[in-house]
Amino acid sequence: MNLFLKRLGLLRKSMKKSKINVYLIPSADPHLGEYIPDFWRIIHWLTGFTGSAATVVVTDKFAGLWTDSRYFIQAEEQLRDTGVTLMKPVNDNTPDLNTWIKDNTPEGGKVGLDGRLFSITRYRSLAASSKDKKIRIVTGSDLITDLWVDRPLMPEFMAFDHDIKYTGITSKEKIDRVREKMRSEGLDYHLLTSPDDIMWLLNIRGRDVKYSPILLSFALIGADQVLLFADEKKIPFKMASGFDKLNIVLLPYEEVTGILSNLNPGSSLLISPSSTSTALYKSVAKGIQVREDISIVARMKSIKNKTEIANIDKVMVKDGVALTRFFYWLERNTGKDSISELKLTSQLEVFRSEQENYLGPSFSTIAAFNEHGALPHYNVTTYSDSKIKGSGLLLVDSGGQYLDGTTDITRTIAIGRATAQQKRDFTLVLKGMINLALARFPYGTRGVQLDILARRPLWEHGLNYGHGTGHGVGFCLNVHEGPQSIGPGANPDSRNVIEPGMLISNEPAIYREGEYGIRTENLILCYEDEETEFGQFLSFETVSLCYIDKKLIDKSLLEPFEIKWMNDYHAEVYDKLCPYLTADEKEWLFLKTRAF
Amino acid sequence: MNLFLKRLGLLRKSMKKSKINVYLIPSADPHLGEYIPDFWRIIHWLTGFTGSAATVVVTDKFAGLWTDSRYFIQAEEQLRDTGVTLMKPVNDNTPDLNTWIKDNTPEGGKVGLDGRLFSITRYRSLAASSKDKKIRIVTGSDLITDLWVDRPLMPEFMAFDHDIKYTGITSKEKIDRVREKMRSEGLDYHLLTSPDDIMWLLNIRGRDVKYSPILLSFALIGADQVLLFADEKKIPFKMASGFDKLNIVLLPYEEVTGILSNLNPGSSLLISPSSTSTALYKSVAKGIQVREDISIVARMKSIKNKTEIANIDKVMVKDGVALTRFFYWLERNTGKDSISELKLTSQLEVFRSEQENYLGPSFSTIAAFNEHGALPHYNVTTYSDSKIKGSGLLLVDSGGQYLDGTTDITRTIAIGRATAQQKRDFTLVLKGMINLALARFPYGTRGVQLDILARRPLWEHGLNYGHGTGHGVGFCLNVHEGPQSIGPGANPDSRNVIEPGMLISNEPAIYREGEYGIRTENLILCYEDEETEFGQFLSFETVSLCYIDKKLIDKSLLEPFEIKWMNDYHAEVYDKLCPYLTADEKEWLFLKTRAF
Repeated sequence: MNLFLKRLGLLRKSMKKSKINVYLIPSADPHLGEYIPDFWRIIHWLTGFTGSAATVVVTDKFAGLWTDSRYFIQAEEQLRDTGVTLMKPVNDNTPDLNTWIKDNTPEGGKVGLDGRLFSITRYRSLAASSKDKKIRIVTGSDLITDLWVDRPLMPEFMAFDHDIKYTGITSKEKIDRVREKMRSEGLDYHLLTSPDDIMWLLNIRGRDVKYSPILLSFALIGADQVLLFADEKKIPFKMASGFDKLNIVLLPYEEVTGILSNLNPGSSLLISPSSTSTALYKSVAKGIQVREDISIVARMKSIKNKTEIANIDKVMVKDGVALTRFFYWLERNTGKDSISELKLTSQLEVFRSEQENYLGPSFSTIAAFNEHGALPHYNVTTYSDSKIKGSGLLLVDSGGQYLDGTTDITRTIAIGRATAQQKRDFTLVLKGMINLALARFPYGTRGVQLDILARRPLWEHGLNYGHGTGHGVGFCLNVHEGPQSIGPGANPDSRNVIEPGMLISNEPAIYREGEYGIRTENLILCYEDEETEFGQFLSFETVSLCYIDKKLIDKSLLEPFEIKWMNDYHAEVYDKLCPYLTADEKEWLFLKTRAF
Repeated sequence: MNLFLKRLGLLRKSMKKSKINVYLIPSADPHLGEYIPDFWRIIHWLTGFTGSAATVVVTDKFAGLWTDSRYFIQAEEQLRDTGVTLMKPVNDNTPDLNTWIKDNTPEGGKVGLDGRLFSITRYRSLAASSKDKKIRIVTGSDLITDLWVDRPLMPEFMAFDHDIKYTGITSKEKIDRVREKMRSEGLDYHLLTSPDDIMWLLNIRGRDVKYSPILLSFALIGADQVLLFADEKKIPFKMASGFDKLNIVLLPYEEVTGILSNLNPGSSLLISPSSTSTALYKSVAKGIQVREDISIVARMKSIKNKTEIANIDKVMVKDGVALTRFFYWLERNTGKDSISELKLTSQLEVFRSEQENYLGPSFSTIAAFNEHGALPHYNVTTYSDSKIKGSGLLLVDSGGQYLDGTTDITRTIAIGRATAQQKRDFTLVLKGMINLALARFPYGTRGVQLDILARRPLWEHGLNYGHGTGHGVGFCLNVHEGPQSIGPGANPDSRNVIEPGMLISNEPAIYREGEYGIRTENLILCYEDEETEFGQFLSFETVSLCYIDKKLIDKSLLEPFEIKWMNDYHAEVYDKLCPYLTADEKEWLFLKTRAF
């Protein structure tokens, strides 16, 4: 019997002892963010699956893994002989997870889960769907700790200060602004559960997860004190004494539940239901007036200040230089046997890491050739690695974490000859990207209203893409950041308008299954344009700097204003990157960016 | 003491007797629709105000009337010496109605209202805002019936059948479809409170209100019977015997509450909270499982069937002929002393009533010259009537009820010379209208996504308009019909997508306060376009037929595809209306619609 079957058997024994019919394991940590430390990769330990998003469901007779389509190939391979079945909701009529749980738990049965790893929102949705069958959800059920004997340790990297030359505003000023907002809303306490909120507020960073410079921590903001719950060993002495001055009290990470259960009755507490775990929620003392909303910090940090914006402009030049070198290197090496998707991923990292203040990738690089490009979130693995050979389209979506900002950019380039259909598709995507970049709109406009600008050229040809058009981007923080977004179903909250200072991705695409994918992505920054008697109008500035492959453009499909945008953008790319390039690279970029 | 002061005094005496601190009077009837019979025009009786939308609030010392800006001029005049103050929420920092009520009711005080005239939604919002001050809302408080001795009678017009040649589907089939939906959702009963839902379901019409051919009625759909609550005198014998065959039971209008209070415990009942009165809601028997949602009928009737669509095409020709005659007549008479906004309104009605199957206007005609056009919902009164003289813009928004459909159309024309700014504004509005008319989008798209197509040309010039872009339109029913709409904040319900068969207005605009207003409105009908591997795509067909004033177009602002749309549209208008016009009218329309 292999390792995974053995672990599954032990888990089932444990379930039987606790009289649990169905046990749930999510890919999450207690902060419910996108990236988690190895300590919390329970699914990897139990099944060998290495993808970043999944839920495993175990019953006495069955074990299934739910994930999304980008991981299907890889999951089929990795789950072989583990006793765990890959569930594909869309392809083969597998019901969605909550329905499956309801259908496969006996009337009045018990579902077990670790309440630290499920948000209130997720728990409520599960509870609602299980209600009819009177299913009990046991949220204090951690069956893993006892079984996982060789569990990785929690990361022990030290936190570090994020200098005022990057942040622009002191931590004191940020805390004051949050407290002012709390007062105006009659709030006594505000719980922060997302580490990126805490990093922004305290002007610190950490290295606890792979793609975001965060320190895993909770914080409770009160009228006088800020309680910071974190591993004390990771806080340098100088940082700690800075905390003292601001009345930031450092407490052990685990004590957050104790503190929440001892708040003064009658106080009001703000929490964010999508990023607060069920366990934390349940620990809040009785008699506390809990208000649920997105965190005050999340709204504040989504609006970049002048210093941050000046840094972002600089970081875009560095990132553009790394990308230019990468594509130059690729063009000179295409066709060589060593050039595969995995090689591209590592080579791009080499070029980025030559740049000043570089911390690491901001997400797992997508380097996808031909049919792999049709999987929007394709992650190359040794199972899937393709050589870059012959003709086709190569899609590269990547980003970097720098002390002075976070990047996220996608380019699709032609390898060899491109077909007429590829050019038409590429040009329609480009038109969408340009039209969104040129948007002008009154204050109060939401992302759902703007989305069609990027899709309209595709829709006119009966094409579309199945994901949103834009997400917020952090500042030396999460590459996916709220509350803003641009998409067809995005943001029912009418307060989530696009505001000056917001950094957003602009990434229309098209995916032809089994053939290729095309995505062109720049980051755009919202700024205040003209004010008229009809209101304050806003516009976007495109800040990402990298050439767009002209070989793939069918110029006959572009309007004059779109051609002008292309030529202006290329001139800017060349002018801004030039000072940092070698003569050869410059000459190459000159041709790539020459007006057409 | 005048009549109104006397009535107000009597109401206050009555309030004192009932220990009511604040009494609320809405402009509503128990069906909570847009148009109400004279019997329910309590505000007119109490204050003399004739506008169609208002709420009056009376305390022992104060009486205020809340209405919207279109009625401000008229309300100032009509409320003089009545003891009632006009409240203008926007202009002079008057708080919104609910806040005012909270602020002006003593702690623990009593607010009285007639629960038949307040929707559940409205009642809940009032209750929520009054909660902090422990204000009691007495919803059974009808203080008017006893005071209003010379109250108008309820209308006594007979209902009439809406022929299958118009409706396309029998009442039996419609009821079957609703029951099928009810079964699939596990519903025992469905209460219909909006008369237009009932008219559609039973293929009948009435004449109880001014602008919509409805019979005031409620209906309760069960598994075997439909109970129709209406004034029995208004149902012709033949209609009643038709009802018998379908197991539609006619009951007195007032008995709806009694029936609701006697439903079998444990049954499930669907009601629509925005169109169901608090009184009806409170009458529902205990133990009934009440579900709240938009009515099943509202969704069904929003999608026009083939017969209805064929009729709509015919009605557009008739309406277009009437409008063509009207504008031809106007051009020949402009400058004459008799030509005023009021005269236009009555003359347009003359031309429409010459058309076959015409029942009356579908809303109060807006004929607004120059600065009056800047009030989006301007209704001419003897107080405001303007002569059409000199130069300027005339905005005419009107519609008709025909047995074979409902129309709603706006044209803005130049009287004398137009300025460059007027032409630019007009052309930008036109561009918006054309771009929405040409939209192509996948199934599942909502109105909030499409709205920007109509606004973008305006936004690019720092212009905007403060209302939605489109509303649904009934079929020989309400000119404003849900659930679909096109607007920046429209329809948080993600099910409210634009579906094939929906008839929607397309009416971008611009309003320059004190100067003029421009609005161009056509009705557009959604149809199934191409199906591709990316889904089923939908498009609109513009169905309204009336020339657009070329004198106001700045052609240099139009793209080639927009000019093509204009010329194609004008050719269609000319071709379709021609057969019904005199030689003079034809010649005139030829010039108005000639390609440019």
